[in-house]
Amino acid sequence: MFETAELDEKVSKADYRRLEPELRSELVAAQKALAASPLSLVVLIGGVEGAGKTEFANRLLGWLDARGIEVYAGEGPTEDERARPAFWRFWRLLPPKGKCAVLLTSWYTTPIIDRVFKRTKRGRFDRELARITAFEKMLSSEGVVVVKLWMHLSEKNQKRRFKELEADPDTSWRVTARDWRFHGRYDRFRQVCEQALMQTNPANAPWHIIGAADRRFRDLTGARLVLEALRARLHGISAAKPGRDGQPRATHNGKDLIGALDLTLRLPDDAYKDLLETLQGRLGRLTRKLRERGRSLTLVFEGTDAAGKGGAIRRLTEAMDARLYRVQSVAAPTDEERAHPYLWRFWRHLPGAGRATIFDRSWYGRVLVERVEGFASPEEWQRAYGEINAFEEQLGEAGNIVLKFWLAISPQEQLKRFKDREVTPYKQYKITPDDWRNRKKWTAYRKAACEMIELTGLERAPWTLIEAEDKNWARIKILETVVAALRRELR
Amino acid sequence: MFETAELDEKVSKADYRRLEPELRSELVAAQKALAASPLSLVVLIGGVEGAGKTEFANRLLGWLDARGIEVYAGEGPTEDERARPAFWRFWRLLPPKGKCAVLLTSWYTTPIIDRVFKRTKRGRFDRELARITAFEKMLSSEGVVVVKLWMHLSEKNQKRRFKELEADPDTSWRVTARDWRFHGRYDRFRQVCEQALMQTNPANAPWHIIGAADRRFRDLTGARLVLEALRARLHGISAAKPGRDGQPRATHNGKDLIGALDLTLRLPDDAYKDLLETLQGRLGRLTRKLRERGRSLTLVFEGTDAAGKGGAIRRLTEAMDARLYRVQSVAAPTDEERAHPYLWRFWRHLPGAGRATIFDRSWYGRVLVERVEGFASPEEWQRAYGEINAFEEQLGEAGNIVLKFWLAISPQEQLKRFKDREVTPYKQYKITPDDWRNRKKWTAYRKAACEMIELTGLERAPWTLIEAEDKNWARIKILETVVAALRRELR
Repeated sequence: MFETAELDEKVSKADYRRLEPELRSELVAAQKALAASPLSLVVLIGGVEGAGKTEFANRLLGWLDARGIEVYAGEGPTEDERARPAFWRFWRLLPPKGKCAVLLTSWYTTPIIDRVFKRTKRGRFDRELARITAFEKMLSSEGVVVVKLWMHLSEKNQKRRFKELEADPDTSWRVTARDWRFHGRYDRFRQVCEQALMQTNPANAPWHIIGAADRRFRDLTGARLVLEALRARLHGISAAKPGRDGQPRATHNGKDLIGALDLTLRLPDDAYKDLLETLQGRLGRLTRKLRERGRSLTLVFEGTDAAGKGGAIRRLTEAMDARLYRVQSVAAPTDEERAHPYLWRFWRHLPGAGRATIFDRSWYGRVLVERVEGFASPEEWQRAYGEINAFEEQLGEAGNIVLKFWLAISPQEQLKRFKDREVTPYKQYKITPDDWRNRKKWTAYRKAACEMIELTGLERAPWTLIEAEDKNWARIKILETVVAALRRELR
Repeated sequence: MFETAELDEKVSKADYRRLEPELRSELVAAQKALAASPLSLVVLIGGVEGAGKTEFANRLLGWLDARGIEVYAGEGPTEDERARPAFWRFWRLLPPKGKCAVLLTSWYTTPIIDRVFKRTKRGRFDRELARITAFEKMLSSEGVVVVKLWMHLSEKNQKRRFKELEADPDTSWRVTARDWRFHGRYDRFRQVCEQALMQTNPANAPWHIIGAADRRFRDLTGARLVLEALRARLHGISAAKPGRDGQPRATHNGKDLIGALDLTLRLPDDAYKDLLETLQGRLGRLTRKLRERGRSLTLVFEGTDAAGKGGAIRRLTEAMDARLYRVQSVAAPTDEERAHPYLWRFWRHLPGAGRATIFDRSWYGRVLVERVEGFASPEEWQRAYGEINAFEEQLGEAGNIVLKFWLAISPQEQLKRFKDREVTPYKQYKITPDDWRNRKKWTAYRKAACEMIELTGLERAPWTLIEAEDKNWARIKILETVVAALRRELR
């Protein structure tokens, strides 16, 4: 894989002087076109130590208009980052539309290093690479152009570069004991990187391997590749254009899971009051334990309009310490949120360890209201199932207990509740023309909900269907489910 | 100060039952009015341990619509917070317009505790309180309604409360060794808090002291005070209305500091090249040292249009590692930024330790373009001097080296550069109709700039005026100033 990059291609000083000014003005022009486009650019610079990844980043920033470009070279996860999913630190720094980021540390860094030093097994490494592929595909679909450059040096050249740098007092600080340790494992490193690159090399986000023995060749080639990839996407002539890759749509077995619920289930008031008190007591103690253990809880509430989400959430929060929970309702995205991938508005507010977040509607809007109302294209909502599963999987890995509830009522019950809201003064704010409009699309919403439950019901982030015709029954079933899950997880 | 709160006022169960429903619906109505207003609400809950600050927060969240309310009870600054100004953790969690936050830990917490345990002297404590007063005044002016509640218990009642809590297995965990340690210093704590409250008690952000011996009285009174403060601001009948307090305007001695510059200063090309190389080498080494020491650098560039800010910045960044700097240009605020106090859009992106941030135009826009063009009201730009000074003072305390440059050219030179930009294809993007329009307001901008330099030239965050008629001279003077400051600070 690295053979071509070891041909030691060179660019002479004269050629460099001739080629640089033109490349530079083309880069600035492309950056201006980017600023006016709905795309954003991520330049990911990987490669062997000593290949000059940072030197190249310096050069690229010098050629571009550096204003607003985010350069990331974070060393290890910080306290805030460790309390959240592994990709959170990258999710956060994705540039908005029109802007650019340069990553010297990326989602490849930890998986590769852990594999080189055999801290992870091959199976885990493969899963990490598969996750990266899915993540980059999502970025591409969401208008983030990811240009992946790999700076390569042969073993011999790496040694020579380290010696060169060490010989000059101005640069000797750049060669560390860690670099020589990596050099000692050159073969292992090369082999692991080859696996990584081969497995994450799809047409829509290919790797570009650059021979870095000659600095002028490295810089011109790297910058030229950035320029070409950006131009290709800007001109819409790239194979990487989103939504055109004939992705098979998610399949669904067509079962009406919600229709199968027994909506006659009831709980009398006296039993309800007893159970409520007991379960709220338990929930209070368990959320304290959650905090002590540094775990987190994510509860998602979706359901038919007027199914009683708000009331059920209140029965949970009554039992909890205000310092430990946050109720998040989904509002229209802000302009910053619209300039980022769909899930970004949820990523950015992820709580740290020890907290509970309760979503009154959630990212599932993508495959419910946005699907039914046509706000998301079929390509967008179809790929959302996989994207959401990947997101929740990462939440789970970060110690987050994820539970999702679908609250179901019958059309007759909904009508009764709507009418009740219209005539009761302090409930009037709860009913809007949207509610009546959505009601007319009952069947379409039902179908979307069933598909969603089928396609996103993960073992570690399960859906619980709630018969919500009777509010007592619904609230107790939800409390029981949360208490049982917390007990299991905090055993 | 706490005498009234020790009268042990009570609310009977019957009264509570009667009063609660009405209060609750009034609170929800006020919250709805808030959501539609340009205001935001911060409920700050302070007080003695055992007074039930968290219990009250739970109750308040139960009465309000909890969705979107941020509750903050952070214990100590995190890694990310320690790398930034002390107030950064509070700046970040200010709610946007229409929303609400509840602070159980606030900007009072650390100053009071440090003073109780004599980790700070009285003089420092007084300065911290003065800073808080200025900060709250700014919040009030920017439409943030801060309701400050102080939950009080007499020494006897505190002891009784702790014993009560300890006796019940469900609540015994709430009483910690730290609580008893505070109880042992009750008198000292009371005395320090009294000082704190007295010195931060202006008409626009007064303290409300609530006797917390009776829970029903505490909760009804606290919630009622929140309701009243919010209503008063919503109805515009409060004395706290911003910009009406006859604040004296910043005075300026009227000197034309910029006009006094000698714009004939020149540096020949050969001397420039030698100096550039030497100074860039030094700057490169010093920024590395900056990182090693965990210090930060903030450079602010302001000046006449076409004065050469971009070129000067490039001469700095050429010498620096791309991982260590970020060039930030000021764009139009996003809708999230418009929903927060003016400085928030700068606060939110403050870099961590070891980094350099270069601002190509900055928060000084408030007292330059926004003043001259009338985008900010006189009240707004006049108070901005003090707000900016307070901000930069905090940057300095957090280890940030702040340097500010004003680049000055003559009207003749500007005209020449504008015309050159119009005829040179690769410079055309640099000239806009705005530039020609601003040029017509030369005198107004000059006056605003001189006042700004006079009123915000702090010893720890000085302005350096740059004679920029000759680009060589300007660039070298800037490099020399930065290098000298870094040498002094990193000695």
